Amino acid sequence: MGFNLMPKDENFQGMFSRTSKNVVEAAKTFHQLVKNWDAGSPLIDKIHEIEHEGDLIRHELVDKLNRTFITPIDREDIYALSGELDDIIDMIQAVMDRMKIYRIRKIDDGLVKLAEILERSAVLVDKAICEMDDKKKVTRVMDYCIEINQLENEGDNMFKKLLADLFDGDDASKNPLEVIKWKETYEAVEAALDKCENVACTIESIVVKGN
Amino acid sequence: MGFNLMPKDENFQGMFSRTSKNVVEAAKTFHQLVKNWDAGSPLIDKIHEIEHEGDLIRHELVDKLNRTFITPIDREDIYALSGELDDIIDMIQAVMDRMKIYRIRKIDDGLVKLAEILERSAVLVDKAICEMDDKKKVTRVMDYCIEINQLENEGDNMFKKLLADLFDGDDASKNPLEVIKWKETYEAVEAALDKCENVACTIESIVVKGN
Amino acid sequence: MGFNLMPKDENFQGMFSRTSKNVVEAAKTFHQLVKNWDAGSPLIDKIHEIEHEGDLIRHELVDKLNRTFITPIDREDIYALSGELDDIIDMIQAVMDRMKIYRIRKIDDGLVKLAEILERSAVLVDKAICEMDDKKKVTRVMDYCIEINQLENEGDNMFKKLLADLFDGDDASKNPLEVIKWKETYEAVEAALDKCENVACTIESIVVKGN
Repeated sequence: MGFNLMPKDENFQGMFSRTSKNVVEAAKTFHQLVKNWDAGSPLIDKIHEIEHEGDLIRHELVDKLNRTFITPIDREDIYALSGELDDIIDMIQAVMDRMKIYRIRKIDDGLVKLAEILERSAVLVDKAICEMDDKKKVTRVMDYCIEINQLENEGDNMFKKLLADLFDGDDASKNPLEVIKWKETYEAVEAALDKCENVACTIESIVVKGN
Repeated sequence: MGFNLMPKDENFQGMFSRTSKNVVEAAKTFHQLVKNWDAGSPLIDKIHEIEHEGDLIRHELVDKLNRTFITPIDREDIYALSGELDDIIDMIQAVMDRMKIYRIRKIDDGLVKLAEILERSAVLVDKAICEMDDKKKVTRVMDYCIEINQLENEGDNMFKKLLADLFDGDDASKNPLEVIKWKETYEAVEAALDKCENVACTIESIVVKGN
Repeated sequence: MGFNLMPKDENFQGMFSRTSKNVVEAAKTFHQLVKNWDAGSPLIDKIHEIEHEGDLIRHELVDKLNRTFITPIDREDIYALSGELDDIIDMIQAVMDRMKIYRIRKIDDGLVKLAEILERSAVLVDKAICEMDDKKKVTRVMDYCIEINQLENEGDNMFKKLLADLFDGDDASKNPLEVIKWKETYEAVEAALDKCENVACTIESIVVKGN
């Protein structure tokens, strides 16, 4: 049996796992939502609930952190990781809200593709989080982090292509307000992918220090 | 008499009070300015002076922090709180500067309403700051923080409505450059409200730890 | 001989110098690039290489930081400074990438001027970094930091003028998509100048504490 970085009675690990499960749920729901976009979809309320649940867990975690004198991993890492996981969900909710405000009707394939990459990244974030306290799985956790970085690169390349297409061609034929809306939508999903990369970075740093 | 979290000779509390008074002054002046917008108004210089004053207090505070070995509240909280209070004023100055650059002429009611919410939030920030060192007033300070959160929600809903209106209707009838200007103006005031919420969060965390 | 804040065997100072040399190289290359803009220029690859090199140094530095128990300067300052130096290069790469995506053809004089200010600021950042460990040069290092602040102001004023011109005049005659592209380009260079100012702030704080 491996040595646990975080003893069970502290339960920081448990809270992190709950949060990363929430991240997967948010990314998955967002992917489903954009595949069949409807501004009246019940999936929108579902994402709001997931975000609210995330806030509650974060509150609980920060509260425990403030009351815990000795923490299993550096307190600043606990704080950062918890905030970064929260950021992913916040970003997903923000892009969805903006799409509703902008009354977006037809979703293009590019956004669906970006959402799919985000879901894959969220699944890897969850795996890395759930195994980061197991010393025997250090290499595997590091591999997840590398994969998260690769997905961020993949997403970034797709984002750049979508943005170039958006501004491409005879400018006069483009509706500038539509360009503004879509630029912002793509940027927000790309930002959510960046947040996943931040999480991977923090996990790497925690794992390195724990060895 | 309540126990003081921050002994008078340290004077961090005094510096925080001066800063939060400055925040109120900035928000109040901004509200007056947008009610009677004029790119040549003396209120614009006044906000620049308030911002400069804020920078000086912050400099003084960080300086004291660097020279103080034992602080009455966690040094990272002092640093964060001071930076977040500064951020509110910076954001107010930034939106005002941008409005001047964009040569905005006519102010709409929505912006005045947002500025009014921001002023109310700043007043609550000041109250929470001034009473946070009094252990007998913990509940009241927590209530101020809840009210600040509620105002942020109120502002956010108003912001979303304004943004939806901005992009609404027959796109061809909208002047895209005007849309860009107003989108940015609304977003900046909403960001200032977010900064007030950050301050409330930090105060809550300080008060919890102090008990 | 002055007392070294950072003993040679720790080599944090050496890593910082390498990073700030990299910052100068990035800013210089960017200035040359915009003076003779060509989306197929080999200078674009050069900036990508500089950015990659910067990432490697940062990784090395954070790694050393995590393994070093007692650091010559506060670990949070080492971490912040390294991140802020990296931010300058990231921002330069980001604006260049965006210019390529937007298929910008003709560069205006304003951007060349901003890039020139950025190069001058980067040179000062490098000087301040290279001399910050020499106690005899405290005044000179502080002077560099003041100059960096002045350049940020100069850049900010130029940025505001460029932005005002961009939105000025008969709006109907402007191509909104071009306005969006240039607004973002100017903002990104201005953001790089802000990052230089952040570095100056952190150096000031390190030098004050070291005395």
